[in-house]
Amino acid sequence: MRKTLQEIALILGAKVTGDGRVQVERLAGLDEAEPGDLTFLADSKLSGRLAGLKASALLLSESIKAQTPLPHIRVKDANLAMLTLAERYAQELFHPYPGRHPTAVIGRGVALGKGVSVGPFVVCEDGAQVGDESVLQAHVYVGRDARIGRGCVLYSHSAVHDRCVLGNRVILHSGSVIGADGFGYLPVDGRHRKIPQIGIVEIGDDVEIGANSTVDRARFGKTVVGSGTKIDNLVHIAHNVKIGKNCIFAAQFGVAGSSTIGDGVTAAGQVGIISHMTIGAGSTIVSKAAVMQDVPPGSTVSGIPAHDHHRNLREQAAARKLPELMQRIRDLEARLPKQP
Amino acid sequence: MRKTLQEIALILGAKVTGDGRVQVERLAGLDEAEPGDLTFLADSKLSGRLAGLKASALLLSESIKAQTPLPHIRVKDANLAMLTLAERYAQELFHPYPGRHPTAVIGRGVALGKGVSVGPFVVCEDGAQVGDESVLQAHVYVGRDARIGRGCVLYSHSAVHDRCVLGNRVILHSGSVIGADGFGYLPVDGRHRKIPQIGIVEIGDDVEIGANSTVDRARFGKTVVGSGTKIDNLVHIAHNVKIGKNCIFAAQFGVAGSSTIGDGVTAAGQVGIISHMTIGAGSTIVSKAAVMQDVPPGSTVSGIPAHDHHRNLREQAAARKLPELMQRIRDLEARLPKQP
Amino acid sequence: MRKTLQEIALILGAKVTGDGRVQVERLAGLDEAEPGDLTFLADSKLSGRLAGLKASALLLSESIKAQTPLPHIRVKDANLAMLTLAERYAQELFHPYPGRHPTAVIGRGVALGKGVSVGPFVVCEDGAQVGDESVLQAHVYVGRDARIGRGCVLYSHSAVHDRCVLGNRVILHSGSVIGADGFGYLPVDGRHRKIPQIGIVEIGDDVEIGANSTVDRARFGKTVVGSGTKIDNLVHIAHNVKIGKNCIFAAQFGVAGSSTIGDGVTAAGQVGIISHMTIGAGSTIVSKAAVMQDVPPGSTVSGIPAHDHHRNLREQAAARKLPELMQRIRDLEARLPKQP
Repeated sequence: MRKTLQEIALILGAKVTGDGRVQVERLAGLDEAEPGDLTFLADSKLSGRLAGLKASALLLSESIKAQTPLPHIRVKDANLAMLTLAERYAQELFHPYPGRHPTAVIGRGVALGKGVSVGPFVVCEDGAQVGDESVLQAHVYVGRDARIGRGCVLYSHSAVHDRCVLGNRVILHSGSVIGADGFGYLPVDGRHRKIPQIGIVEIGDDVEIGANSTVDRARFGKTVVGSGTKIDNLVHIAHNVKIGKNCIFAAQFGVAGSSTIGDGVTAAGQVGIISHMTIGAGSTIVSKAAVMQDVPPGSTVSGIPAHDHHRNLREQAAARKLPELMQRIRDLEARLPKQP
Repeated sequence: MRKTLQEIALILGAKVTGDGRVQVERLAGLDEAEPGDLTFLADSKLSGRLAGLKASALLLSESIKAQTPLPHIRVKDANLAMLTLAERYAQELFHPYPGRHPTAVIGRGVALGKGVSVGPFVVCEDGAQVGDESVLQAHVYVGRDARIGRGCVLYSHSAVHDRCVLGNRVILHSGSVIGADGFGYLPVDGRHRKIPQIGIVEIGDDVEIGANSTVDRARFGKTVVGSGTKIDNLVHIAHNVKIGKNCIFAAQFGVAGSSTIGDGVTAAGQVGIISHMTIGAGSTIVSKAAVMQDVPPGSTVSGIPAHDHHRNLREQAAARKLPELMQRIRDLEARLPKQP
Repeated sequence: MRKTLQEIALILGAKVTGDGRVQVERLAGLDEAEPGDLTFLADSKLSGRLAGLKASALLLSESIKAQTPLPHIRVKDANLAMLTLAERYAQELFHPYPGRHPTAVIGRGVALGKGVSVGPFVVCEDGAQVGDESVLQAHVYVGRDARIGRGCVLYSHSAVHDRCVLGNRVILHSGSVIGADGFGYLPVDGRHRKIPQIGIVEIGDDVEIGANSTVDRARFGKTVVGSGTKIDNLVHIAHNVKIGKNCIFAAQFGVAGSSTIGDGVTAAGQVGIISHMTIGAGSTIVSKAAVMQDVPPGSTVSGIPAHDHHRNLREQAAARKLPELMQRIRDLEARLPKQP
């Protein structure tokens, strides 16, 4: 990014302590900072790292008492200030195709908003709509009558199939698939007859969907992902699932058909939820758990099958002692005289 | 779809009870039905939902005793009748590219059958064959000498690599990869030397493979997916696996190299099977299980490692009581006089 | 491949026992070998299979004592000799596009090395570099200023995003995504604000990455995959993870942000590692394990949460007996007189 610390202070509306002329080339985490880097310290527990820090400059949260000889800027929240700088830098680094690449195949009746970027080999089928300032990177597929909102970014090889709907500022990472058929069959004469999946997927505003994740279309009606929900890579959302707002689903999470997930739910990596479950708002599901019964709002669950996390920890602790426990039972049996 | 209930009755060869002139715009599930929708009731346990139903009309299985004031059609199996209607509607909604898109790259000696749809930016390498009426959506890749049967649908960004074979009426959802290299290495001088994977994948008729699922080619010979088997999203089938007919594998299932899975096996979500296992025909593997020994035909297994499901349920129930069990053992020890 | 056994002996620098004029059409495993096939026997435990073998010829390790009437070649290590033949055959079967396909979109300042193969619909954004003899199959996406080394193979629909770096002889299978954004958010006013991911991915030499696997770019700095590491399908490597050399990660493995994995680590299928863990060099993680604390070098762990594998096996054995154990405790309680 190549700025002086003084220029960075201006961006943040804050003051430099030390030499403001120092050049910053990159932003870096505390552990990896090298000369030329600007780093940040927001957590006083990490103050010990200040000694020996090789960065050229740093941002400090006001709450940090520790001193540093390095040029620095004090801000209310160094984490948030760093994020603000990173956003600016990310924007500099992002170069969507300016306009519509001549190779793109745009169907009849497609409505492209103002400032839409259409990369090479993009396909928009008939009747698709793409809102202002949205970016379709190379190899993106937008199905017939699909609707993409404003300010979205669809990375290479992502696909939004027929009639599916994305809100504004949605990010689809590479290889994500919105609107493949839900997985449903009816047993007829000993075979699995496909149940047509004629519903759609509806994704709210400010949703991010990770690389190679999949959100299936509904049998009828809609599969829904609420606004503000963030989904990591290789996640599977089955047909007719309803997901609330501001959820966080880590990588390789999967939820089976027709389950309902409330607002603000967090599911860690490799969690699974079987079909027709209800997950209460604000609940947390610990890594690798398998949810096989409803989860009450605000609870934390873990285990296979998932149940109360604190209870599960106690059971795990006991399970760790099982071999010794068996010996104690054998001892008891030996000490107890045979039944008369 | 926009039909009168009378027109729908004609399609189903059945009679309307009530006003046959009512307009149906959409098909819908019982829970989401609104005015304009046709819904269905096949399960008498759900008869209570008839009261307050907002649908415009419905299909009822003959076995349903409950009455409704709504216009309806009685059929032998409302589930199957609904499926028939949905199939017609799905066909109306499906618009493959009519013919061969001018951007498609078709190699030497490629044989495209009658009525094949080839979308924009499709690649068929030299010697590939595609059977009559098959659909290759935009961005599909068909490798050298690969063979696709009749009536297949390959969605955007799916790939069938060199020499792999698909039967008739196979569906590949977006991003699925057939015939990537199996994962095999030989330790040579402390490094992992790649074992070339020169076999193929052979997929039977009427197989469906979900979005971003992967089926690897064999080291030698074939990885096989039997006819009628249905595979959900993000599933991994390793090299040299042999899968029988009419299996069902839910999302994020994975099976390691050289395992054999019999006919009619069901594996639920996030199940794993290690290499060289034999899974007997008709068995069921419960969600999240890890199969680490052979599974006898017709059995139901769960757990990590997987074993008999009913036994596992009893063990789980006992494990839930472990903390109290430990207390009971402490009590016993306290009550029992020290050994003399 | 169609060679006489004598010609194969010449390739291997070894001698034929029996009729060297026999024609070999294919290479095959011991279990699937048919007339026309060359197979191999490297493990004396499998010597019993020699009887009834239908292959036309075979390779035998010197250590094998068993005799066979089939024409054969004795070599030091039949496994390695077979691999050598398979490599030759694989090369014959591989037909990358000769040169640069006219449809490819190559940006400004892109440096393509000598002998690079660029398939149909490949996109290389401005400033990308691709080393000598590398292969970009159809539909590959190479981002701005990305650097691909020499002798790499990128299969259809794989993507290397902006500024990411691949070493030499790296293989990316179809649908793999290098450099999607890491999954990071800062809670601001009850919403998840995206933390920009401005770092890169750096992949060493001789790395193989499976179909639809994902390696996310770092928040700052680098996500690193060390040379010689082999990654199977549908694997997730999160942002800022540092992976050593010569690791093996089986399918559906996932590791969360900022974890560090030493050299020579093996993780089996569906293993998960939470964030900020340290996995010691040479350790092995058994299928389906969830690593939730650091793993010492050279150890073998299993279970959820993962701990010492042998200890875990003992605990599992005890857990299998829990229902009977409960009965034994009830018996003890019944036999012991009530507390006075």
